[in-house]
Amino acid sequence: MKTSPSIKTPNGFFFSVTEAAIKKPGRKDFALIFSEVESAIAGTFTTNLVKAAPVQLCMRKIASGRGQAIVVNSGNANACTGKQGMKDARDIVTISSKQLGIRMELTYICSTGVIGTPMPMQRILPAIGPLTGGLGNASFDDIAKAIMTTDTFPKITSRQIKIQGKQGTITGICKGAGMIAPNMATMLCFILTDIAIEKMTLHAALKSAIGKSFNRITIDGDMSTNDTALIMANGVLGNKPLTKNSSEFPEFQKALDELTYELSKLIVQDGEGATKLVEVVVKNAKNESDAEKAALAIANSSLVKTAIYGNDANWGRIMAAVGYSRIIFNPEKTDLFFNKVKVVRSGIMNNKDKEATDEIRKKELKITVDLHAGKASAKVLTCDLTEDYIRINAEYRT
Amino acid sequence: MKTSPSIKTPNGFFFSVTEAAIKKPGRKDFALIFSEVESAIAGTFTTNLVKAAPVQLCMRKIASGRGQAIVVNSGNANACTGKQGMKDARDIVTISSKQLGIRMELTYICSTGVIGTPMPMQRILPAIGPLTGGLGNASFDDIAKAIMTTDTFPKITSRQIKIQGKQGTITGICKGAGMIAPNMATMLCFILTDIAIEKMTLHAALKSAIGKSFNRITIDGDMSTNDTALIMANGVLGNKPLTKNSSEFPEFQKALDELTYELSKLIVQDGEGATKLVEVVVKNAKNESDAEKAALAIANSSLVKTAIYGNDANWGRIMAAVGYSRIIFNPEKTDLFFNKVKVVRSGIMNNKDKEATDEIRKKELKITVDLHAGKASAKVLTCDLTEDYIRINAEYRT
Repeated sequence: MKTSPSIKTPNGFFFSVTEAAIKKPGRKDFALIFSEVESAIAGTFTTNLVKAAPVQLCMRKIASGRGQAIVVNSGNANACTGKQGMKDARDIVTISSKQLGIRMELTYICSTGVIGTPMPMQRILPAIGPLTGGLGNASFDDIAKAIMTTDTFPKITSRQIKIQGKQGTITGICKGAGMIAPNMATMLCFILTDIAIEKMTLHAALKSAIGKSFNRITIDGDMSTNDTALIMANGVLGNKPLTKNSSEFPEFQKALDELTYELSKLIVQDGEGATKLVEVVVKNAKNESDAEKAALAIANSSLVKTAIYGNDANWGRIMAAVGYSRIIFNPEKTDLFFNKVKVVRSGIMNNKDKEATDEIRKKELKITVDLHAGKASAKVLTCDLTEDYIRINAEYRT
Repeated sequence: MKTSPSIKTPNGFFFSVTEAAIKKPGRKDFALIFSEVESAIAGTFTTNLVKAAPVQLCMRKIASGRGQAIVVNSGNANACTGKQGMKDARDIVTISSKQLGIRMELTYICSTGVIGTPMPMQRILPAIGPLTGGLGNASFDDIAKAIMTTDTFPKITSRQIKIQGKQGTITGICKGAGMIAPNMATMLCFILTDIAIEKMTLHAALKSAIGKSFNRITIDGDMSTNDTALIMANGVLGNKPLTKNSSEFPEFQKALDELTYELSKLIVQDGEGATKLVEVVVKNAKNESDAEKAALAIANSSLVKTAIYGNDANWGRIMAAVGYSRIIFNPEKTDLFFNKVKVVRSGIMNNKDKEATDEIRKKELKITVDLHAGKASAKVLTCDLTEDYIRINAEYRT
């Protein structure tokens, strides 16, 4: 196992990666996750109306709540590829399932990469044999590497919790790094656990965790056609399956919340061209929806993000963003903080420009807006906007 | 008069500019527009809930429909400046009116520049004398220069129409150049005409013209605290005031529509760091609201705009943007064009990558999305997103 020492892989899962040269040769871009036994599975998917073929396929399968294998490729999103794209996704599922000796209902498929280009099936089909045949030749870490597109580092994290006296493991990987917007991201996330959990409970737990992690991050406000988060629970730990009423369930939920939050934070840290991690907190809003709208308006503002990049404590742009977020508040009651420095008091400047500039130079910045309008709050993670974002995205297909 | 030959200034208006060194010394940043007679006036303003003091003041004045002078400065937006900001705006209006010998109800005020910094009244107050005393020393063109912030060129355009046998003139100036988003822009626009027009008709004509011009442009999706468009009609032409029922009214509206469209196009061409002008047309949508939402989603997408900058005909990002615009359509019926090249046919690629790349290299690009879902359409102007946008906005206050 090549996984870093702090990362434990849950028992009963096996991995394989191979090169199918989907976008270009030279890297392992085709990967397989396999559980030794049929598992509970749950998923959440992009709300973009333009859904990639593999997303459409997974959405149909997930209703069963059962799964055993996930086939995933980078380099091509298999989106906007019409009937041929759907046939290609199905063919990969069918052939993989056959070679793995499982029912095709149990095999899921995910793709990430360029939109609108047909899948190079002439290279993918011959790679399925080596992929399924190679099970065990890779670690979960290797899968994290195989699914990278413009990511600069693989993203993996893990939690262990005691369930009925036994040590259970939950481990997740994901990829970003552009087209990151709420209601998921250009984002693939795979979470595996050996803890047994009832399928409806698993679904609810995932949905709740995603709501406060992946759905609260934004890099460029663009929502992808391919966002998928899957969690597979194979129950190899042998515990009595968790339900919402289990005494251990809150601990499971907490671990899952932490894990998805950590993964989503890694995505933002690795946002295209990002040099800073920015946490936007809007508090004392009238309701959570207002808090979220205001936080997202700030986090998506190109002017706010370029100012942060330029170490310019330009709080006026933040006030302006809250102003156009379509929430009701009183600007003259609003306070604004950069980390702990109060730069705006009751809507006007607090003469802390020097202190604010010191804060904004740091690698991590917390912007807090206190609306004094109620008791609700929301937190959104984002990053700065830099010349490198432009460079990466101007040249993505070349 | 220093105005370029094709630009005629309407009769009965006088101009003055002076230096108040509001942000820094070295340029004429304080300007005055004055009509020799009391005029009809109409205005539209930012819908941002955080409104600059001068905007709040103008919004109260405009109800009267009467005006004679506009005082305007660049370098400071007088936004998020609280009670002091409102007092400063009032003081400038009061003193200017007194020196001009008009009632203060007839003097309007606009500001553009940095948000959140108090107005440097110690430099502004002494400059009011030279400003009002200098009337006639400047052209409308000079006002266009005085209100520039990150604009790289002044924006002025003009139309002439025959009204009751007499040649009437409508001339407008405006400034951009960042914080440009629908429902106005970081935008100041002043339109002057010597044609007499009834005040309610003037208001309706302006609102209609702005709806299809300034409200349909976007550079970065950020909406400013200071957007203001004012039109002043002094009636010096001596025609019988136009009403909606006048036979010449449609021609007046047409001229105003053309003028505001041309000005808004100039703003986008001069978008911060922009190298290309992009027209986004969504047609055959179910209704106009859908068409507008889809066009704005495309025009605001950082991924679309960086691809255009990089000469990458990455239509998948456009499809994705329409997909998350929250309209209902069938991706598999959608066609997409770069200028006249059909790159997507029925939702999938049409093998025109080479031709599309030739089109995207041009300075002006028209993206047409045909949804085949109805009969409504909408057009939005935008520009590409470049490293220079980042540079300009990362360093704006320094």
